[in-house]
Amino acid sequence: MSDAIEIFFDFASPYAYFSLDRLEALARRHGRTVTLRPILLWAVRKSFAMAPPMDDAPKGAYLIADMERSARFFGMPYRHPDAFPISTHLAARGYYELAAVAPTKARSFVQSVFEAYFVENRDISDEAVLADAGSRLGLNPRILAAMTAGDEARAALVAANDEAAARSVWGSPFVFADGEAFFGADRLPQIEWHLAAGAHKRSPVLTGADNGI
Amino acid sequence: MSDAIEIFFDFASPYAYFSLDRLEALARRHGRTVTLRPILLWAVRKSFAMAPPMDDAPKGAYLIADMERSARFFGMPYRHPDAFPISTHLAARGYYELAAVAPTKARSFVQSVFEAYFVENRDISDEAVLADAGSRLGLNPRILAAMTAGDEARAALVAANDEAAARSVWGSPFVFADGEAFFGADRLPQIEWHLAAGAHKRSPVLTGADNGI
Repeated sequence: MSDAIEIFFDFASPYAYFSLDRLEALARRHGRTVTLRPILLWAVRKSFAMAPPMDDAPKGAYLIADMERSARFFGMPYRHPDAFPISTHLAARGYYELAAVAPTKARSFVQSVFEAYFVENRDISDEAVLADAGSRLGLNPRILAAMTAGDEARAALVAANDEAAARSVWGSPFVFADGEAFFGADRLPQIEWHLAAGAHKRSPVLTGADNGI
Repeated sequence: MSDAIEIFFDFASPYAYFSLDRLEALARRHGRTVTLRPILLWAVRKSFAMAPPMDDAPKGAYLIADMERSARFFGMPYRHPDAFPISTHLAARGYYELAAVAPTKARSFVQSVFEAYFVENRDISDEAVLADAGSRLGLNPRILAAMTAGDEARAALVAANDEAAARSVWGSPFVFADGEAFFGADRLPQIEWHLAAGAHKRSPVLTGADNGI
């Protein structure tokens, strides 16, 4: 059983923004780590011939209202972006590049991009906006220039998309914990319950008889 | 602002089965009632050109696993039905007939049909199975015979489907509370939070100055 909890997500997913901090806090409570796997959700869904989730008009309108309400419910700053959804391949490549060359900065970069998009209404498909998100983290100009252009980061994103498709990821956030898949910001209570049940199985309470008492 | 909370649902929706008792308990805590509006989800979605939710293979497989896990999470008996989803127009007509002629039995009928389908794996598209669900509630044979065949019940179901389409209902359960829409069994915490916020607005806490103290 793998210890790491994996979260596949798209940088344009409000529900990923709502989930990530809370998932990491939950993981810490259970002595686990969280592995981030940014993907391009539209590309993965296309591999299943699934249309983008916002395409159905009544569902799309509901989801925008639900995103704004969920932000208030979770107590997080949120301003629904004017351009929504948005192209996230540069942001995802930037993450994979940082994860390889400046791993301690990679998680902060995710937060910086989420806040640029979901709080400051900035265009995170723009390389200059991503470079600015990176420079706020004190990254040097050489890394910033390479961040979204590297072949390895491009390959890492393709690999993440392919793996997501192979593992039937069809939404964001999509979490794998102890062999089970959980979709959505609203599944955190079930993830915690699942981890607690697994911990119980791994460390059975010994009865007096089992202890030889 | 209407006091009643409305729940639109399809009898073949496990998430409706998981939600209904808990929604009613939540409503009671806030001095509210719950109005039940059975619909045919496929017909309402068709009016938006939306395919049935189980049609996308990876999503359908996930949902079945999530239904079984959610039942365990909520502590409810569940046996995923062999025939899923299933035609529910007779069950819905039966509900509307009972609501008109034996209203105190109508809510019990819903529970009886949910348990026949989601616990006992019975074919709730079969009139005999629905009659049996009714007879367990002590309904007399005349009512049972009329239950799924009446013109008024048929018209009530058509009207519910039309209203659901007009109000952009695209899933089950779909709850309206104080002017806001909430989709899914996982939105009960947000419904409760919304009702509590509304109660606060309706009954503002008076400061000493407001009280003339």
